[in-house]
Order: sequence, then C-alpha cells, then structure tokens
Amino acid sequence: MTKQPKHAISPTRSDDYPEWYQQVIKASDMAERSPVRGCMVIKPWGYALWENIMQAMDAMFKETGVKNAYFPLFIPLSFMQKEADHVEGFAKECAVVTHHRLEKDDTGALVPSGRLAEPLVVRPTSETIIADAFSKWIGSYRDLPILLNQWGNVVRWEMRTRIFLRTSEFLWQEGHTAHATQAEALERTRLMLDIYARLAEEVLAMPVIKGAKTPAERFPGAVDTLCIEAMMQDCKALQAGTSHFLGQNFARASQIKFQTADEKEEYAWTTSWGASTRLIGGVIMTHGDDDGIILPPRAASAHVVLLPIFKKEEERQAVMDYTEQLARELRRQRYHDRALVVEVDPREIGGARGWEWIKKGIPLRVEIGAREVKEHTVFVGRRDQAHQMRSSLKREAFVTEIAGILDDIQSALFERAAVFRREHSVEIGERADFYDYFTPRNLDKPEIHGGFAFSGWCGEPACEAKIKEDLTVTIRCIPSEAAEGPAACIACGRPGRRVVYAKAY
Amino acid sequence: MTKQPKHAISPTRSDDYPEWYQQVIKASDMAERSPVRGCMVIKPWGYALWENIMQAMDAMFKETGVKNAYFPLFIPLSFMQKEADHVEGFAKECAVVTHHRLEKDDTGALVPSGRLAEPLVVRPTSETIIADAFSKWIGSYRDLPILLNQWGNVVRWEMRTRIFLRTSEFLWQEGHTAHATQAEALERTRLMLDIYARLAEEVLAMPVIKGAKTPAERFPGAVDTLCIEAMMQDCKALQAGTSHFLGQNFARASQIKFQTADEKEEYAWTTSWGASTRLIGGVIMTHGDDDGIILPPRAASAHVVLLPIFKKEEERQAVMDYTEQLARELRRQRYHDRALVVEVDPREIGGARGWEWIKKGIPLRVEIGAREVKEHTVFVGRRDQAHQMRSSLKREAFVTEIAGILDDIQSALFERAAVFRREHSVEIGERADFYDYFTPRNLDKPEIHGGFAFSGWCGEPACEAKIKEDLTVTIRCIPSEAAEGPAACIACGRPGRRVVYAKAY
Repeated sequence: MTKQPKHAISPTRSDDYPEWYQQVIKASDMAERSPVRGCMVIKPWGYALWENIMQAMDAMFKETGVKNAYFPLFIPLSFMQKEADHVEGFAKECAVVTHHRLEKDDTGALVPSGRLAEPLVVRPTSETIIADAFSKWIGSYRDLPILLNQWGNVVRWEMRTRIFLRTSEFLWQEGHTAHATQAEALERTRLMLDIYARLAEEVLAMPVIKGAKTPAERFPGAVDTLCIEAMMQDCKALQAGTSHFLGQNFARASQIKFQTADEKEEYAWTTSWGASTRLIGGVIMTHGDDDGIILPPRAASAHVVLLPIFKKEEERQAVMDYTEQLARELRRQRYHDRALVVEVDPREIGGARGWEWIKKGIPLRVEIGAREVKEHTVFVGRRDQAHQMRSSLKREAFVTEIAGILDDIQSALFERAAVFRREHSVEIGERADFYDYFTPRNLDKPEIHGGFAFSGWCGEPACEAKIKEDLTVTIRCIPSEAAEGPAACIACGRPGRRVVYAKAY
Repeated sequence: MTKQPKHAISPTRSDDYPEWYQQVIKASDMAERSPVRGCMVIKPWGYALWENIMQAMDAMFKETGVKNAYFPLFIPLSFMQKEADHVEGFAKECAVVTHHRLEKDDTGALVPSGRLAEPLVVRPTSETIIADAFSKWIGSYRDLPILLNQWGNVVRWEMRTRIFLRTSEFLWQEGHTAHATQAEALERTRLMLDIYARLAEEVLAMPVIKGAKTPAERFPGAVDTLCIEAMMQDCKALQAGTSHFLGQNFARASQIKFQTADEKEEYAWTTSWGASTRLIGGVIMTHGDDDGIILPPRAASAHVVLLPIFKKEEERQAVMDYTEQLARELRRQRYHDRALVVEVDPREIGGARGWEWIKKGIPLRVEIGAREVKEHTVFVGRRDQAHQMRSSLKREAFVTEIAGILDDIQSALFERAAVFRREHSVEIGERADFYDYFTPRNLDKPEIHGGFAFSGWCGEPACEAKIKEDLTVTIRCIPSEAAEGPAACIACGRPGRRVVYAKAY
C-alpha cells in the first residue's frame, strides 16, 4: 500500500498560495494555458461551471427586462477615439487587426497581406460600438429605455496573465443600457450591482461587499463605477463584477440624442456592467482547500459522482445495476431549476479515483459496494467535509433528500467564507497600525496576511496614491452600506469617510 | 381610413428576391449591417431566435455525450500552416492581428504599435488549435473518444456579404472529436449530420436533403464532408450544416498519436462539424412571405403577442386586466421544453401595431377588446394563415390548447416547405433539358426559377466544373438516401451516379 498523502495539492495554500492556485486548477482539469500568449483553454469541467454561471445570470437579467443581442467583435480605430478617457484606458492593451489575407512571400513563408484602410481593434469592451448603434436607434423618449446584454469574448493584451483572473482573452457578459433620465440610469446601475451581489452570494456562495470605486479606479469613461469585492483565502480582494454609470459621456461622444416628451433634444444617459470568467477564479480561491477546488452546488459542473466498488467479480453485476438505477433516479431530481447532474465513474483504478473527484470539487461522492446493495444504502462523502468523514444513508432517503444536502453544503461554504472574511477584517484608525497590518511578517516567503481594513480616506487622490505606493494596498470601494460615521484619513489624518482598503488581484 | 397595403413587404419575393430578403430583415428588426465591414449587429428579436436554436442543438449534442469547451480566438500563423489544404482554403479570408497596442504618432493620431513576433489569425475555424490541444491530451486509447463542442464567433473575411448568409464575423458552434478507429469517427460524422437534419426539420421546419459533398466542395483538409441542403423560396440551395470526417489528416499534421490496447502507436481519427447563424437566413428564406418573416414556433423568439384594444376609455381597465391575466396564465404553459414566451403590446398606434407583429413573424396574434372580455373569448390570428383569417376561441380552450395550435403551425410550415421543394425538384436525364431548366426565362429581371435537379455525374471534376462554369450550378450533394440506380453524367453522358444539382447561396 502506498501511504496516503496528507493533502492532495502541493504546495498547500499557506506554503505558496499563487502556486497552490495553479496546481488546483491543473488537478481539477478545469483549464490550462494555451500556446497563444496569455490565452487559456477552458476544458469541459471548467466550462460547465461557466455555463451554470451564465444560465443563472441570464435568468436574473431577463427578469429585469434585459434582452440579449450581439455586436461586432471588431471596433474601428476611429470609434475607440471618440471618448478620450476610454481610449486612454484601453490603448495599451489592444489587439489590432491590420490585414485581411495571408500570402506566401518570396521564401514561401506565409505573411499578412491585404492591408486594411482603417485598422480594427479586437473589442476590449463594446461601449463605443454599441453607443454608435444606440445613436441610430434612439430618436424619441419612446425608444427608451434600451436594455441589452451581450455574451461573448473580449481581448485585453495583458502583460502578466493568470488563468481565469487575468487573461488576454476572456469570456464575459457586458450589459449596455440607455435611459431618458439620470435617475433611471443610476437606478439601473445599482440594480445590476445587486444582481451581481446575489449571483456571488446565492449561487457562488461568495460573500461580497458592495460599493463605489474611487475616481482613480473607475472604468475609463465612467462617471461612477460600482463594484462587488470578495475576499480570497490569501486575504486579497477580488473585484468580481462592476456596474458603471456612464452619465452622458458616451452619449455625447457618439451623439445619442433623443427628443423628450416636451420636444426638447437631450443626450441619453447610459450604463454598462460586466462580469467574466474571472468569477471562476473567485470560486476557486474562495472555497478551495489543500485537497483541491470545492464547487458550490448551485453552480457545480456536476452535483454527485457514483463510485461503484466490486471486491469480487461476482459482485460486479449487482453493484453496477444498483448504481445505474440510482443514477437514473437522481437524474430525475431537480436542484434549483436544473436537473441534477450525475456522473458515474466505474473505472477500477483504486484510491486515485476518489481523489480525482475530490480534486475536481464535486459536492457529493457516493460509494456503492456489495454491502450497500444488500442493505439498500449509499455511502456518502461531502466535499465540504474531511474526506474520511463519510456516512451511510438509506438509498431512498438519499434520493429524496439530496437537494437538501446540496443546499446544506451551499450554506456551509458561504458561512465558512463569511467567517474567514470576518476574521480577516479590521477597523483601523491609526496609521502605524495600518502599515503594520499590511506588512508581511516574513518577506522571503510570501504569506497569507492582512485582509480588509476599514479605515478613513479624505478624498484626495494623493493620499490614495501614497498608500498604494507604500503598501500596494488600494481602496477597494466606498461601501454602499451605511458606514459608522466619519473616519480620519489613514494617510493624512484629515476628516474623511470610511472605505475598504486591501491588497487586490 | 388609409388603404391597407396589399403586402407589407416591398418588393415581393417574385419581384426581387434578394431585395425582399433585405427588406424582411429590416421590417422584422432582427439584425442590421454594422459600421464594421461585413459584420452584422444581431438585434434582440434575431438573437432570441439564435438562443433557441443554440438551446435545441446544445441539448441534442449533450445527449450524445458531447461536452462544451472553449479554445482561444487567436491562432498562431504557424498552426494554420500545419495542414496544407486547410491553410490554402482559408488564407484568402483571414483577419490578422499584428500589433498589441495603440500609440499616438507625431501628428497625435492613434496608430498600431507593439508588433507581435508572430502574427495571430482570428480563427476562421478551430481545427488547428484544437488539434494541438488533442495532441497533448491524448496518450492512450483510454483517453478516447474526446467529444467536444465550442460555441463562439469566427471570422472569415468575405468580399461579398449578406446578413446571416455570409458575414465576415458569424456566430456558430464547432464540434471536434477524436477517436481510436476510423469506423467510430465515421459513425460520429454521420451522427452529427443526423442531428443537424433533425434540428432543421423538427425545430426549424426546414426540409433538408442529407448527403456528401464532392471532393471539389469539401472542407479544406477533410477526407469527406457531409452536409444538409435546404431549398429556399427562390429555388436556390442553402447549405445549412456540415459534418466533416477528417481522417488522420489533422492528427498527422499535429501529431495526435495514441497507444492502442496492444501497445502500438497510431494516429487518432478526427471529425469536426458546424452550424451557424446562417440557419437564421435559412429560416427567413424558407418560411417568409410577402408580409414578412414567419417564425417556426419551436424556435420562435416569442410565441404569442396579446394586443389589447380599447375603443372607449372606460373599457381600458377591464381589457388590460383581462389581457394581463391571460398573459400570466399563458406564461405558465410550456411548449417543447421551454416556457411560452408571451409579449403584451398595449401601444395605441392603430393598425400599424398588428402589422409590426406580422412582419416580425410571431406565430400567434391575439386581439382582446371589450367583446372578448364580455364573452370570455380571444380573437386569434395565425401567422401561417392570411392576416384577415382570424377566429374567436373560448379563452380557456385557447390556454389549454395553445401548444397544440403551435404544433399545428409548425407542421403546416414544414408541409408547405416540403411541397415547395417537391414542386421544384425534377429528375433530368437529358443535357438539353438540364441547361434549359437552369436558364432564367428573363435575363433582365432575375426570377425564381430552376430548383433541385436530380441528375447523373460520372465523378470527373471536369464535368462538375463545366456545369458550374456554364450555369453557376453546383453539385449540392451526393444524397445519402438510396438513389434509384445509376444515371448518365449530365455533362459527358458516361455512366455515373445520381446527385443533386442546384444554384446555391
């Protein structure tokens, strides 16, 4: 017998968190780097999670009247330039198409040919091309609001990439709306943020803080950027979704005008909001442990795996029959608007089989041997509990109660993440304490330290910049929830408001 | 009173079919040209149809064990070159990314900057990048089969574009599988063709002929290309989906090798198969009439629109209540695995309202006035019938029978298309008859003529090329269904097999 490893993933989170992240992804078979710089291949186990996230979001969007549409992948260079801040924000990371053919040169090598009169940018986001469409579609207040969403890919040529968290190409949704009044656009901006928060908390079991970005951290071209911020297990913040109030900036740049009820001409008010495959990175870093990832049942690629075990050849038929019958019954059960996804894994590869599913983070593992067949039971392991902790349940009870068990796992994951965040959140009033809080104890070995510091900020960009320069700590958001009164700026001591400081992805 | 136009769309199909096609799309608000050359904007009414097509296909794929995944948008130039026929087939229409930044030049104008060491091609299809992944994932026969599908966008720089039918960027799915044996790969190629045929016939009510392409019409790099061909109302063929047996071509080019059960090393056998937003063009041209598009209920963006009518102000409340209540009840009904999609349109814009929905092709229009409220009825118009033909139904009966009515419309559309195809299909044995069949009667005014000619082909590329050159008629496919024996080649008279000739999109 080989000795069981203490943990399935090496290194552990506390040993080397960034490397742990790469290793859990590899062990789960969710995704991998591609031969194209900074781009990833999302494998079926990872893509199924994304499909569930998309489905949940799409339903929430549609409940609020949003409809899906599709706009071109390419944006003419001239469009990008219409909004000055916008182009400034994205110019450094644009993939540019300059040719529309390949031709053989004198040496027989294939080279780009057919130069385009105007280069095309592969969309890093679609505000400018959608604003152009809006300007044609909107003439009167009767045409408003327009509430659209697009599912697709975008490209931002990032220099330092990390799977799911920061990739040159990523999948996302981007919502774009136009309204007759500022109040309505602001309401939509907040509504979509609420949806992101619900998605994160209810579907992904990831507690988030809702708030507004400081001017320095806003989306290029936005008047205000709202965000949700989650805490990862290395105590860093992950921005998990953003909703932008664009004011009349893009309307002015692209001439989105409409006639009001009293026949005046006005610029429309627009919003945009997005969430991406980055959420998958958030799920991994919120719930994963030293045995691999843990998928929250509401979004899990599959809910349960059945693992038939035959110690003797003559047991095989009965065990397989029992297993297949159970799979059929489970697949008829529903869990939060979708059919249960049941995997059956009959491979005879010993203990490696169970570990594979643990590393994949499937919520429930069910072992079935001759004993279970005889006693009409199942032997169930929950991914949120230690892998040795398994319990025997009556087969029928398991089928009828599985949705409840999954909900229980979902709640346990949320609760665990909420406790972690609570334990790594502090109120700090003193500058020295603040600097101490964000200084690693051991610089040779990056360790999990710090967290969310609720401290004051006077509103000066210079103070924000100073903290960022000294500690690589940024203001994650000005929380939406009523703060407990004013707080002195942690950088200069002047009166300010309470904000959330943290290191971030 | 304004005089009712005889037809909502001008020109009619028989007046000018290509222009009719543009006008029905405009009138339906499904899509429009974008400012980016050859790219379209798919508007909500068009995108909802695509969502339903995706959902139906996705379910059918998954039933056969296919899982979704996602590969990079960009393909390194060196990958494109690995399969000689493949690069030859796509080189002329590749969008090429050469830079990864924008910078201001001396005049302040934004220009591409940061030249890439190796140019990247925006995927026209993903065989080469997926083959590279397969070569890494596959080591043993135990790793096979791999059954993947990708939903996404692709770019082919077409010189002459037409919305949905031929656009520089389009949305599609591309399936890619790898197998241990030739037989299994061939079986998968045929299975996916069967799925496309089922989708076309059962969901889109579009009769198709299944068959194989001639070598000249094969996918670049394929050993065999199977296809489904539908007849449009101008009697031209539309290739609506293709399934390719790639043999070991891409496996050899990308070294996809595996160890067999008896420890020999072999190349894997691969397939690929795709269907795109072109299907929407097929739906429009199969079912549309001179009043606009007609959506087959199984894929329709919405199933029914409720049109409240108030002749006097005091009727308004009762009519609206009755309408809203009916909408709620209808939305609880299911139709082929999805909830009924019900639109309510209370706009007071006179007859234009009803015509808008006719032009959008919604299967059912329901008028509700004071009389309907009093008599507990609904006044129903079916899009597959003349717009004057409407009938009064008991409200309760309508709610319980709506799924049946929709199925009836679905069958009627299929039947109508099948009759059209039958009436425009001929068996031709004589060369002169063949040339006559495909020669327009009036060359000044392109007219609807010709159709599918079942005639012989000896197998010589020269004969195929001659027919194409003389008549712009191509061999659409060698039908899968048993032909009625041999047929003399329509070009040279030598013995041959029966194939389908037609003009095509």
